[in-house]
Amino acid sequence: MLQYPEPANKLIDQLSLLPGIGRKTAQRLAFHILKSDDVYIRNLSDAINNIKKNILFCDKCGIMSVENICHICKDIDRADDIICVVEQPQDIYAFEKTNSFKGEYHVIGGVLSPLDGVGPDDLNLEKLYKRVKVGMEIIIATNPSIEGDTTSLYLAKMLEKLGAKVTRLARGLPVGGDLEYMDELTLARAIEGRTEI
Amino acid sequence: MLQYPEPANKLIDQLSLLPGIGRKTAQRLAFHILKSDDVYIRNLSDAINNIKKNILFCDKCGIMSVENICHICKDIDRADDIICVVEQPQDIYAFEKTNSFKGEYHVIGGVLSPLDGVGPDDLNLEKLYKRVKVGMEIIIATNPSIEGDTTSLYLAKMLEKLGAKVTRLARGLPVGGDLEYMDELTLARAIEGRTEI
Repeated sequence: MLQYPEPANKLIDQLSLLPGIGRKTAQRLAFHILKSDDVYIRNLSDAINNIKKNILFCDKCGIMSVENICHICKDIDRADDIICVVEQPQDIYAFEKTNSFKGEYHVIGGVLSPLDGVGPDDLNLEKLYKRVKVGMEIIIATNPSIEGDTTSLYLAKMLEKLGAKVTRLARGLPVGGDLEYMDELTLARAIEGRTEI
Repeated sequence: MLQYPEPANKLIDQLSLLPGIGRKTAQRLAFHILKSDDVYIRNLSDAINNIKKNILFCDKCGIMSVENICHICKDIDRADDIICVVEQPQDIYAFEKTNSFKGEYHVIGGVLSPLDGVGPDDLNLEKLYKRVKVGMEIIIATNPSIEGDTTSLYLAKMLEKLGAKVTRLARGLPVGGDLEYMDELTLARAIEGRTEI
């Protein structure tokens, strides 16, 4: 059978390794790149090469930063007695967009997942434990998934031992959601967590 | 508002320019690349850099090739009195997979699309006209879209003047399709083109 030329196959192979990119999409992208002008090709490959070289992670909280300590951790106007624990650096951007949290953050870099061989030692937890002081509030903002919930229970146990007050984000209906199409679990959580008007 | 570091933004910008990749997907890909190991990052950027440098297009038919004349055009066992005209080089791979066409190909590199400013001069037509001999069969295999059909009508007119017999692919039900979910136009074409059993 007719095969794509080797340089095309190589690019398709590499692109297929990206999350959510199947073989067909990788082919479409590769052919698009093949037809692109040289400037775009150089810009794209440079951007790929540079992202890891030029981005640091804050020593304290783990967010992407261009310095060793990020400007959130440096900011003296932010409360340092409340830490929001997230899975990934990009979650912090979601919180910052809301403008409703003025504490600090801590990125643990994933969730506990025994099936994938991810245990407590694989997460950025030691640094978190060191930051905790008695009476501090820790909001555990892992994703509302099974692994996220497991991680949150594990963390709560550990952090309470250190004297922290541990909270988690409210579960319920997303704003703009439609009751009719809401899954049972979300609806069940919304009933459990109902509040007085 | 908190901004992504510049190197992340740059990569997100470049990735968003790819077809079918929106801003959110570009972010997801960029963060995945940021977390990837150096070997993958180098492989990916090399593959992007090399695809255009190392792939030629056949001088005769326009398919991707590693030589000036592709091995389909070189193959003396293939009929040279029948040419299948396609929009893109990758369409040829689809035909070759079927094993049911043993003629040659010609890539025109797109379709006529006045709204996008694509006229006959922007397509690889002159080389096609030069290949046509009286009595030759030309199968016009543009996509079954409005632009594809327009291009096919235009080409048919031009090629008939040169003495070619012009055909096009049958329209009808795709194999494995479900009548109930077939669109009206496909069904109408299937009725028009019905054949005796």
